[in-house]
Amino acid sequence: MYELIKQDGLARRGRIHLKNGEIETPVFMPCGTYGTVKGMMPSDLLEVGTQILLGNTFHLMLRPGDDQIRDLGGLHQFMNWNRPILTDSGGFQIFSLGEMNRLAEKGVTFRSPVNGDKVELTPERSIDAQVNFGSDIIMVLDDCTSPDKNEDEVRSSMELSMRWAARSKDQFNRMKADSSKLFGIVQGGMYPALRDESLSQLIEIGFDGYAIGGLSVGESKAQMLEIMESLLPNMLPDRPRYLMGVGTPQDIVMGVSLGVDMFDCVLPTRNGRNGYAFTSEGIVKIRNAMHKTSQDALDSLCECYTCQNFSRAYLHHLDRCGEMLAGILITRHNLHYYHCLMTRLREAIENGTFRTLVDSLKEGWKKYD
Amino acid sequence: MYELIKQDGLARRGRIHLKNGEIETPVFMPCGTYGTVKGMMPSDLLEVGTQILLGNTFHLMLRPGDDQIRDLGGLHQFMNWNRPILTDSGGFQIFSLGEMNRLAEKGVTFRSPVNGDKVELTPERSIDAQVNFGSDIIMVLDDCTSPDKNEDEVRSSMELSMRWAARSKDQFNRMKADSSKLFGIVQGGMYPALRDESLSQLIEIGFDGYAIGGLSVGESKAQMLEIMESLLPNMLPDRPRYLMGVGTPQDIVMGVSLGVDMFDCVLPTRNGRNGYAFTSEGIVKIRNAMHKTSQDALDSLCECYTCQNFSRAYLHHLDRCGEMLAGILITRHNLHYYHCLMTRLREAIENGTFRTLVDSLKEGWKKYD
Repeated sequence: MYELIKQDGLARRGRIHLKNGEIETPVFMPCGTYGTVKGMMPSDLLEVGTQILLGNTFHLMLRPGDDQIRDLGGLHQFMNWNRPILTDSGGFQIFSLGEMNRLAEKGVTFRSPVNGDKVELTPERSIDAQVNFGSDIIMVLDDCTSPDKNEDEVRSSMELSMRWAARSKDQFNRMKADSSKLFGIVQGGMYPALRDESLSQLIEIGFDGYAIGGLSVGESKAQMLEIMESLLPNMLPDRPRYLMGVGTPQDIVMGVSLGVDMFDCVLPTRNGRNGYAFTSEGIVKIRNAMHKTSQDALDSLCECYTCQNFSRAYLHHLDRCGEMLAGILITRHNLHYYHCLMTRLREAIENGTFRTLVDSLKEGWKKYD
Repeated sequence: MYELIKQDGLARRGRIHLKNGEIETPVFMPCGTYGTVKGMMPSDLLEVGTQILLGNTFHLMLRPGDDQIRDLGGLHQFMNWNRPILTDSGGFQIFSLGEMNRLAEKGVTFRSPVNGDKVELTPERSIDAQVNFGSDIIMVLDDCTSPDKNEDEVRSSMELSMRWAARSKDQFNRMKADSSKLFGIVQGGMYPALRDESLSQLIEIGFDGYAIGGLSVGESKAQMLEIMESLLPNMLPDRPRYLMGVGTPQDIVMGVSLGVDMFDCVLPTRNGRNGYAFTSEGIVKIRNAMHKTSQDALDSLCECYTCQNFSRAYLHHLDRCGEMLAGILITRHNLHYYHCLMTRLREAIENGTFRTLVDSLKEGWKKYD
């Protein structure tokens, strides 16, 4: 499924073949939690260059339910998105719920934040839900450990995740879901040795792709980098590598430079709704009074609908008035910015100019960051 | 400026020539209170068939201020809408503020609901603000009377409005804003004689168009109809007639059948955000559990983006999850529905089949209304 097209240093230019189409990597996946990227129509997503969306199993299981989505023809048809979809497993949301869940060998039990109902999520149940969605890429259920746990706790959590990964693979096989692809998730916290052990066990089980989980959960940038640098060289060269929940444009450049192929993050959408725009000059906070009378575009180098048609003064006004169009227009710009960044990274790898591009990106970001 | 193309009964098919383009009448104008039709991009508005927008002087004076809009090139450039804009005068908002305002011969003084500042709005100030916006159609400041006032109170309020109308015309002339058009507003509450008197005084002053104000403020449908039936025959045939703040599809059909040319209302946008869809079968309340698993479009006869691409089940899900896309998609449908209704009314008048169309529309609405 993964085709390596070109390499520049460790950075990889590739292509992933999925049942709903091909995606060019490195790729960024916007978050479509409840079957919608907040405020964006599918036609908007196509226009800004989205190749593949992420959906959240945890949320969609609760509302409207994976059985209902199946009965309505699957997630692609439900949300009118006919390109690839990756769904997470629900593991990260369980981690975020904290005290609201109870963990056991079998799986996790939690109270629905929607209606208080007791819900059970097991590795098998998560696979079943994702098969019901008809996802192009299915993720295994994992136990995502907090970075402040000690080594014994992290080992025991990682080992649980590996047993869950094996059960997920079994269930995936039983469901004969082989038009979809199944990804394993490396855990092991901030301990490089545990990370290596986790990766080896996953490779032993055998997956279509390998993700790095449990990062971007509160650790320092240096810790993230250390784990990445030690882990990436051991990942299989013929499988896609996915860094989960990451991140800022800077994080993405770092990931790509170490050989990561796939990224997802809520930043461009969530921050967009809060008036934060990612630009070639760093982050523009549109709420700031300095933009009140500015005729400039958010980003003078950007060709998105927002930058081609509206001034910072107008966006500032919309944001101050609480108008939904502020979030819509800045989200649209941010996604365009992220996708454009990926396109430029892909082109630079093809041309062997990755390093030069990264230096020039970093120079630009200095103005506001 | 007004060209009468065809008449069918009292219903008029016409064209209004404005500095930013022509509009085909009867026409519906969506509300763009703060320089945005909530949740809609200008490109969406063009796609659903919007010919002219309404902006609110009261809101835009407070945020971002009419002087700032002037300095940024006017309202059209600020919001990136290069077709006609009509702005109201602020009179209706003063009426809505109720206790927060103090009325005098000179004008009205109120506390800004945004920051508590004391603000003065006079007929002259309202004209100046609308000239700063660069509006295609400028409305005079009026005192909008509540339907429960007695005849003496309504007379005195109407007479004040007429003195304000004369001052507005003077100010409009002083400002040499003659690329814009100035409309007077008939007041006089639920008293046909006062309405006639008001209209005569406005015609004496002389305006480019005449609006009917002070309806849709809590009176009964029968009261509204009585006023309309007595007033419309006396309105000048060579000037556009604008029924302010009206209304439902049924109200609009009633207005057109009596010879009204222009309408505005928050219903398609505000109700859209609350999950109410106007359809050929009446109002669909998408929150209703009956739509939870429906594969049907909101309106099986509709060709809008929403109806062509999404099921009621999906819209129901988005609405239940509080997703902004619910409001965006239903607003888009509702505006398409309103504009389509106007197109059909215009075509029917041209073809002499107005009565037949109205009967068939009413038959359809019966299912849900």
